Amino acid sequence: MSSSLADAIVAADSQFRREPVKARGTFKSESTLGERFRSEVRLRGHRLTVDEPHGIGGTDAGPTPIELVLAALGTCQEITYRAFATALGIPLAGVAVTVEGDIDFRGFFAIDEHIRPGFERIRVEVRLDSSASDEALERLTAAVNRHCPVLDMLSTPVPTALSVMRVAG
Amino acid sequence: MSSSLADAIVAADSQFRREPVKARGTFKSESTLGERFRSEVRLRGHRLTVDEPHGIGGTDAGPTPIELVLAALGTCQEITYRAFATALGIPLAGVAVTVEGDIDFRGFFAIDEHIRPGFERIRVEVRLDSSASDEALERLTAAVNRHCPVLDMLSTPVPTALSVMRVAG
Repeated sequence: MSSSLADAIVAADSQFRREPVKARGTFKSESTLGERFRSEVRLRGHRLTVDEPHGIGGTDAGPTPIELVLAALGTCQEITYRAFATALGIPLAGVAVTVEGDIDFRGFFAIDEHIRPGFERIRVEVRLDSSASDEALERLTAAVNRHCPVLDMLSTPVPTALSVMRVAG
Repeated sequence: MSSSLADAIVAADSQFRREPVKARGTFKSESTLGERFRSEVRLRGHRLTVDEPHGIGGTDAGPTPIELVLAALGTCQEITYRAFATALGIPLAGVAVTVEGDIDFRGFFAIDEHIRPGFERIRVEVRLDSSASDEALERLTAAVNRHCPVLDMLSTPVPTALSVMRVAG
């Protein structure tokens, strides 16, 4: 299992080096808002329901968008740990992550324009089950935090183009 | 339905103005990596499976972390449109959003350190079903893009503190 994961990583890596165009991809989310704040999302073949909790007017049919950001960061850390541990030959039996984000809803509610609408800060706690040396784990963590895609997007702005159009119902 | 959503928004807004401490919250994601890249996530009472596609060594049991970021942005736009349309009294029968992100995996694979690991750019297409005037929709869009929490987090870095610890398996 672990060696075939290594094989998959090596195969992708060597293909991307040989044919950089194969390294480029576009991912897509398509969603439609239903009643109140409930939205149904399609991500390739996967479906997801997003909603807001009852207190704010939702029906709590799924996690909120900002919770998805925390989940994205936590799982991206985990996957990046496994990928780099495999690539670097560092033993890693398990990894679990807790991510917390602090928000002040006065930003979203436009009550105070000095308060940002998103998380003011995020804390990530990574728990590694590994027999590797401290030095090896420090090397692993440095590689992970330099290459974790979601951490990158929360640290360095992503140019985002928004277009809005009117459609018939 | 629409008026009781307005009531919920007005109630939250006035509570946050009266008691700012009530506007502050902390959200949490807890996840554990299983076999290969598959992770099980808990967000309050909600569960989510995250994975990578087959090509890269995963089993495609769920969306990837970077797809969750796109879903978070798309649904956050939708929810923010509904909330501000309701608050501003602008008719909005429906909203659907497509989000696309371009990535070059040579960043994640550490093949070229000048390529960022996250999305290089994101495109958001918002489709509004509304009988409102163009001017009202422009006002709505401006309010949404100033207060959408996920758009904020992709535009302005979020201070993120990472801690790593070793645990027994």
